[in-house]
Amino acid sequence: MERSGLLIILSSPSGAGKSTLARRLMAWDPSLRFSVSATTRKPRPGEVEGEHYYFRDKEQFNAMVGAGDMLEHAEVFGNLYGTPRGPVAEAMNAGRDTLFDVDWQGGQQIRASVLGAHVVSIFVLPPSLAELERRLVSRQQDTAEVIAARMQKSRDEISHWAEYDYVIVNEDLDESTESLKTILTAERARRARQVGLGPFVRRLMEEQH
Amino acid sequence: MERSGLLIILSSPSGAGKSTLARRLMAWDPSLRFSVSATTRKPRPGEVEGEHYYFRDKEQFNAMVGAGDMLEHAEVFGNLYGTPRGPVAEAMNAGRDTLFDVDWQGGQQIRASVLGAHVVSIFVLPPSLAELERRLVSRQQDTAEVIAARMQKSRDEISHWAEYDYVIVNEDLDESTESLKTILTAERARRARQVGLGPFVRRLMEEQH
Repeated sequence: MERSGLLIILSSPSGAGKSTLARRLMAWDPSLRFSVSATTRKPRPGEVEGEHYYFRDKEQFNAMVGAGDMLEHAEVFGNLYGTPRGPVAEAMNAGRDTLFDVDWQGGQQIRASVLGAHVVSIFVLPPSLAELERRLVSRQQDTAEVIAARMQKSRDEISHWAEYDYVIVNEDLDESTESLKTILTAERARRARQVGLGPFVRRLMEEQH
Repeated sequence: MERSGLLIILSSPSGAGKSTLARRLMAWDPSLRFSVSATTRKPRPGEVEGEHYYFRDKEQFNAMVGAGDMLEHAEVFGNLYGTPRGPVAEAMNAGRDTLFDVDWQGGQQIRASVLGAHVVSIFVLPPSLAELERRLVSRQQDTAEVIAARMQKSRDEISHWAEYDYVIVNEDLDESTESLKTILTAERARRARQVGLGPFVRRLMEEQH
């Protein structure tokens, strides 16, 4: 049955397992499209245009914002980041879902956009904040100061849990992956997404006339 | 995680496989409660009060309607039928789901009731009307006239498909049963139903204070 694509928003505090879950979801369904952001920051070595980012200068970026071509955008450390609408709408019309790895601000903006009716939003919670801190420490990437700042950012992020359609407490990666798959399968089956149902019922009713 | 119970509305034209699907769902999850209707018609041999129906006289029935104790009610062939609110609300508060086998009118009334926010509604479509008629004929229960009347009723019922959250085209009973399970599992996981999430996040945030 033909259906319209979904905009799947996955948010969580850093370290709650969101990236791993996103990767597993993409492996489960290769038709999923991972949303690529546009940015005004310079490409780093190895970064590929259209794969890691759409690299744009400030003028181009602001022109897209002005034309309503960004689903959401924000400034982070002096650089602009945003989600171009075109590729998302294109995937949607082709019945393909797009996965967004965004924070609560990005989530709010996408929900408030013209494509907001197609959003399914999922928030991933850690089982505990101590566990979250343990994971950040064990990465051995950050100083104690950076970790403290990340934990504060995590608290801010977690405070927005109630804005999401689904909340998953990520105690076990396998269980959480199964939950994500179930949510996606059911959301895809919703009547409002099955754009093929109208024509199907019309044919059904005309059968015996 | 503690959650509030759902009101699961299952509707379909007669012969589309709804009763079989309901039975399979109850076998899959014995905690599901099948909604028992109240009626003013006389019990038939073997019918048990509270299991097949709540048998009430007209005065008792109308008193319940007057007191707002019926989620929905209708008159069919001179008898009154309705869904008492008490047992549904009780199951809901205990985190148990109630399954309703009702037509589109019953579905509309339950959605419009005070418990409407807890409804998940699913419409089961036959793959074709010819198939539906074939199933009715093969039962060998009805005359051609009765079958023609049932088919007209089926068309009326089908015309309300777009009022439901989910639509399942029942081509294969096993597949349709899996779809139902997936829908139920996902709907139970919705943030708004997980009444235990609020306290959980409060504990999470207080952890390090």
